[in-house]
Amino acid sequence: MTSTLDTVQAVLATTVTRVAPGLLRRLASLVEAGAGGLTVALFDREIIGIEAGDTRGEMFGLALDVGTTTVVGYLVDLLTGTLTAAVSAPNPQGAFGADLMSRVAFAQEGPAQVRALQTRILRLINALIQEASISAGVPGDRIYKVVVVGNTVMHHTILGVDPSALGRAPFAPVMNDSLQLRASEAGFRLSPSTPVCFLPVVAGFVGADAVAMILSTRLDRGREVRIAADVGTNGEVVLGSRDGLYACSAPAGPALEGGQIQCGMRAAAGAIDQVMFGFTVHSRVIGGGPPAGICGSGVLDAVAGLLEIGVLEPSGRLQTLMPASAPDDLRRRMVATADGAPAFVLAWADQTATGRDIVLTQADIRQVQLAKAAIRSGITVLQQVAGVGDEEIGELLLAGALGNYVSVHSAVRVGLIPTLPRGRTTYVGNAAGLGAQMALVSEIERRRADDLARRVQHVSVAAHPDFQDLFVEALRLG
Amino acid sequence: MTSTLDTVQAVLATTVTRVAPGLLRRLASLVEAGAGGLTVALFDREIIGIEAGDTRGEMFGLALDVGTTTVVGYLVDLLTGTLTAAVSAPNPQGAFGADLMSRVAFAQEGPAQVRALQTRILRLINALIQEASISAGVPGDRIYKVVVVGNTVMHHTILGVDPSALGRAPFAPVMNDSLQLRASEAGFRLSPSTPVCFLPVVAGFVGADAVAMILSTRLDRGREVRIAADVGTNGEVVLGSRDGLYACSAPAGPALEGGQIQCGMRAAAGAIDQVMFGFTVHSRVIGGGPPAGICGSGVLDAVAGLLEIGVLEPSGRLQTLMPASAPDDLRRRMVATADGAPAFVLAWADQTATGRDIVLTQADIRQVQLAKAAIRSGITVLQQVAGVGDEEIGELLLAGALGNYVSVHSAVRVGLIPTLPRGRTTYVGNAAGLGAQMALVSEIERRRADDLARRVQHVSVAAHPDFQDLFVEALRLG
Repeated sequence: MTSTLDTVQAVLATTVTRVAPGLLRRLASLVEAGAGGLTVALFDREIIGIEAGDTRGEMFGLALDVGTTTVVGYLVDLLTGTLTAAVSAPNPQGAFGADLMSRVAFAQEGPAQVRALQTRILRLINALIQEASISAGVPGDRIYKVVVVGNTVMHHTILGVDPSALGRAPFAPVMNDSLQLRASEAGFRLSPSTPVCFLPVVAGFVGADAVAMILSTRLDRGREVRIAADVGTNGEVVLGSRDGLYACSAPAGPALEGGQIQCGMRAAAGAIDQVMFGFTVHSRVIGGGPPAGICGSGVLDAVAGLLEIGVLEPSGRLQTLMPASAPDDLRRRMVATADGAPAFVLAWADQTATGRDIVLTQADIRQVQLAKAAIRSGITVLQQVAGVGDEEIGELLLAGALGNYVSVHSAVRVGLIPTLPRGRTTYVGNAAGLGAQMALVSEIERRRADDLARRVQHVSVAAHPDFQDLFVEALRLG
Repeated sequence: MTSTLDTVQAVLATTVTRVAPGLLRRLASLVEAGAGGLTVALFDREIIGIEAGDTRGEMFGLALDVGTTTVVGYLVDLLTGTLTAAVSAPNPQGAFGADLMSRVAFAQEGPAQVRALQTRILRLINALIQEASISAGVPGDRIYKVVVVGNTVMHHTILGVDPSALGRAPFAPVMNDSLQLRASEAGFRLSPSTPVCFLPVVAGFVGADAVAMILSTRLDRGREVRIAADVGTNGEVVLGSRDGLYACSAPAGPALEGGQIQCGMRAAAGAIDQVMFGFTVHSRVIGGGPPAGICGSGVLDAVAGLLEIGVLEPSGRLQTLMPASAPDDLRRRMVATADGAPAFVLAWADQTATGRDIVLTQADIRQVQLAKAAIRSGITVLQQVAGVGDEEIGELLLAGALGNYVSVHSAVRVGLIPTLPRGRTTYVGNAAGLGAQMALVSEIERRRADDLARRVQHVSVAAHPDFQDLFVEALRLG
């Protein structure tokens, strides 16, 4: 006998295997309300939404890039792929440690700590969902799909999975494969049946964000070898072409996201995101107003500039005096901090939003140096393992949420990345977030992520015989 | 990189596609606890349980047969198929109407009423789960699978689906197909990820119980035509062989389950379940003690006995006086009720648990007559549609939870079923409950149910051109 559901299925082009449990109850009344035509939302052969009328233009998805330091959410129109809203906030797990290892150590204390990590991140995710929903004027029940990317520790802790094993050799994840949960199972405050898709992870410290980066950069498709470096707190470097993919983690720490920098902040309104040295210091501030701090791209520019004028040595030591050849204004900016260590003033107190000088200190520079060494040694190790010299690199892609504008010139100047011929180095923004958006609007891309994760060869940088030497060498600026 | 999950999957013979969300969180610690060997419970390529040691002998399933009047639960050992506990209780939806149509009418009043029907039945199901669990000493988290059968109204209301459409032509279900939910989605108080499987329904009044009956009677496999009649409140008749299957509903009302009978009760301790007429009335009481009432099989025997001694006319009229030839004891048992209508005393007040006479009234007999007519006209219509004469019926199976013992002789005597040569009529007990148990212990059987439901041809008895005549004829006893 023909049921209401049969009637709906008969007009769908795809074979439907089931109806989301949350919809079962309302199926009859929804179909009745849509007597004049209705829109059916399908996911993985399951009916997850029925709406009266043609509502295809009102269906949205959410891509979440959960970083160690920053969490970004992208609300995307599923029909057109248009980005409708982008929201971000600091990862509140930061209270339990700025870097991944300290969070893993915290989790090792017991199940209550694992729950605390999960609760914090879920609370933020739900706040971001609400913020995106309000700012775009999109009701939560119009969000029909979620894709989550993040490093392996984020992946585990969002799921409430104990990441303890990631803190000891062989640093193995509890699970690698992609996952599909319902929002109710994942603890996401959306319609209970909304699919929440976690992209797969590769290894303990090469996560779904690396997979998403490969997805968006098409690193697996090129004839030439290309390198993509995600410059985040838990950075990752991938080298690849259609002949193979290699990935390693590059734990840069939060410096390049403005963390553990005295006047650092993330790339939000009030952050100095670009610095140029001339007779004086020219700074650009996100949003235009007086600066409140400096974000990753600004820090990178400042370090490059100080190297350029010679007050910063390649060893990373900041001299207390500017060379005599330097312009007066710059010379005046060399000051000493309370502990006597040298610092450079980027903005004077009377011009800042905080009423205090915005400075770059010797300690800040050491943080940048460590970050830079992590990324650069990762690149070097992958080149060695894959047997690829600098001259064979077709393109180098610099990725990460460092700021609105990242100067490739500064990145090369400090030695974060190797010097390639002009035009072969590009800043591609948040490549992981972009990959998440691709998996959001295309199920083909989402499935491709599974294939990519299996194909990537994981390289352990620390296990490389030359690692010590490489790292020390990579500490050198320039 | 090999994850904990990869390690588990590597030793499993089947391909696993995912881990139940409820297990994700505990995966690592469960695997660690099972370092000396562990048992993995799989369902539909999903890991739904991990236990330390070899616990295959401690895994159970629950089959639920949700009838209009009675709900029965069977706790079954999944390894051996052994029935470990059987529990039953009256369906608490009865407060909203004894028969299905009055419950559908109640549901038509609005969503609050649909919820009330759902809440009541879920509460009972959860109480039965607990009762079965306690009586068998099986913890709830050892129940790894549930199979639910029931008529279409039960199917819909357990799911919280509005059954309103079942109350008006074309009496179409909202959905037919089998369903798999997690216990948490279905509202069953078990481990959240436990699969709860609803077998498919055929039509508005041919439910999953009919499908389960076909499954257990193998009606679709025989060379000869066989008929199975489920004599419940919402009875169903199926006629079939390997050449085809026909089914119709036979709304008998609750009389044959002891409902709407003055001294009726369900087949539980204290019920007269067998009655024999000689010089006096010989009754058997379930559990042995003094009788408290009479159940379906007892009612059937009593009606057959009264017909036999000639005090009950084939028209259903109970005479006020016993024929002169009847033994004195039986003559004394013909009494008049308060309203002057005749009644027959099955047990005198001083021998009953209630201190009141247990009687069968003229009104009771009319109820039995209506029930009998529903079943018999269903059988007749199916025979007509399939073109099968009485002589071509290879076997007739009488099913239903009428009592521990049902006299096929009585059933034939009152004309509930046609007279077949000796040995061709069998009482098979709760065939629907048995089918549910088969789908519980065998996934092959559970999938076969989907195939059967699609193959059954639904016959609408009321739409048959000769229905009126057939029904009137079927009202005749004997």
